[in-house]
Amino acid sequence: MTKYLMERPHTLIALPFFAKRYGAAKSSISEDLAILKHTLADNEDGILETVAGAAGGVRYIPFLGQKPAEKYLNDLAGRIQDSSRILPGGFVYLSDILGKPYDLEMIGKLIATRYAYADIEAVMTVETKGISLANAVASYLNVPAVTARKRSKVTEGATVSVNYMSSSTSRVAKMELPTRALDKETNVLIVDDFMKGGGTLDGMRQLVKEFNCQVAGVCVLCETEYKDERKIKDYVSLINIDQIDSEKEIILAQPGNFLTRTNFDRF
Amino acid sequence: MTKYLMERPHTLIALPFFAKRYGAAKSSISEDLAILKHTLADNEDGILETVAGAAGGVRYIPFLGQKPAEKYLNDLAGRIQDSSRILPGGFVYLSDILGKPYDLEMIGKLIATRYAYADIEAVMTVETKGISLANAVASYLNVPAVTARKRSKVTEGATVSVNYMSSSTSRVAKMELPTRALDKETNVLIVDDFMKGGGTLDGMRQLVKEFNCQVAGVCVLCETEYKDERKIKDYVSLINIDQIDSEKEIILAQPGNFLTRTNFDRF
Repeated sequence: MTKYLMERPHTLIALPFFAKRYGAAKSSISEDLAILKHTLADNEDGILETVAGAAGGVRYIPFLGQKPAEKYLNDLAGRIQDSSRILPGGFVYLSDILGKPYDLEMIGKLIATRYAYADIEAVMTVETKGISLANAVASYLNVPAVTARKRSKVTEGATVSVNYMSSSTSRVAKMELPTRALDKETNVLIVDDFMKGGGTLDGMRQLVKEFNCQVAGVCVLCETEYKDERKIKDYVSLINIDQIDSEKEIILAQPGNFLTRTNFDRF
Repeated sequence: MTKYLMERPHTLIALPFFAKRYGAAKSSISEDLAILKHTLADNEDGILETVAGAAGGVRYIPFLGQKPAEKYLNDLAGRIQDSSRILPGGFVYLSDILGKPYDLEMIGKLIATRYAYADIEAVMTVETKGISLANAVASYLNVPAVTARKRSKVTEGATVSVNYMSSSTSRVAKMELPTRALDKETNVLIVDDFMKGGGTLDGMRQLVKEFNCQVAGVCVLCETEYKDERKIKDYVSLINIDQIDSEKEIILAQPGNFLTRTNFDRF
């Protein structure tokens, strides 16, 4: 039952379904679910919502508590503070983190916690490094992930494209999304791995509007120092990289605004 | 306990750890694990391996049985046989499938089943559409995913690159991987979403060799008809697209060689 629920987050499962599947009385199913609910709450690692009534049932919401969130983000910030990660141009090597199942699981759960009750219907990112992140978040919110591309590909069919100002290269670039990727009126969460000036995120925001959809939130793994005014003001960041000094080989990171901008008060 | 094991596939957990965590006797932990083992086996949806002795414990292996595998692949082939998926140049629109949590879960589990006992240490793909696939497989094998890129990016640092012959464009192209992405002697599973002539897969195979690593297997979601000789002969495909006729708007798909090339005989 635990496995069944975990594999279908945010999905309401009727109690008679479990009773039939396991050949058990509804009362003993309810008792087992109560134990599961308390265990999840004790570990601050998930919420089991019970909905009463004829159309009722039970729903598993991936949700991390403040303590495990702080612990993980401090650990991650510590690992990012490694001078061998510094790349030319104020970039930071993060591909190892974005390919590790444990990190993707934790980062995915954290972002899914922040937006657990925001009625997200799709997660959007732009190629390349945001993709594993977007899929992790999408799996915990149980919604589709869509990927905008920076150049036309023959394997996508008709697309809608927007121009945006890339703050990292100070050039006008183009990104596009297949017309069939998003339905109208979809509530979209935008995620990416890295934010400097926010130009790429602003491009995604434009793209969402072109599809007549709403931006439900903008969330990045790392934000880094940026001297000019950012194109995106309202965002959530898991990690804040305060300083990157490639000459002195110093990189300073700490948890971002995620911890203050998330309501953990659900257990 | 189910949740703990599921979140750490292929990882040996000592029984005393569970006994301490849940404040229970080792004997009752063993009993609960026996129930879990039988439930997984009955549903052909995972293996719980028990290792005896002082260094022993229990390990969860994501593993699907032949019946659920056949059922899913037939269903998927049916969904791919939709003429609106046909794109110019003999390509097929698959981005929706590669962004859907349920499909990624099933495809990831199937590939992880095929290579469950192949000592895979990393999963490699090339951008863009293989990425969500590679991360899904990597999460069930609990190993890192690495992504080769088709063009130089400033945010990756030093790279090793190879040239390959793209069979879809009939041009020589270049792909590269950061030098720090793979250690020597790593046992690498190569995955991708689509194979025509196998040129891109062959490029990845070269890249693995440049890192002094071994190719443990090559697995694709879809193979499609190709008139010339393929550059890759030994591969596993989940779906075989027999025919794509854009004029007649016909696309025919069926399960690939995965079903005959997987030993399901583990329950």
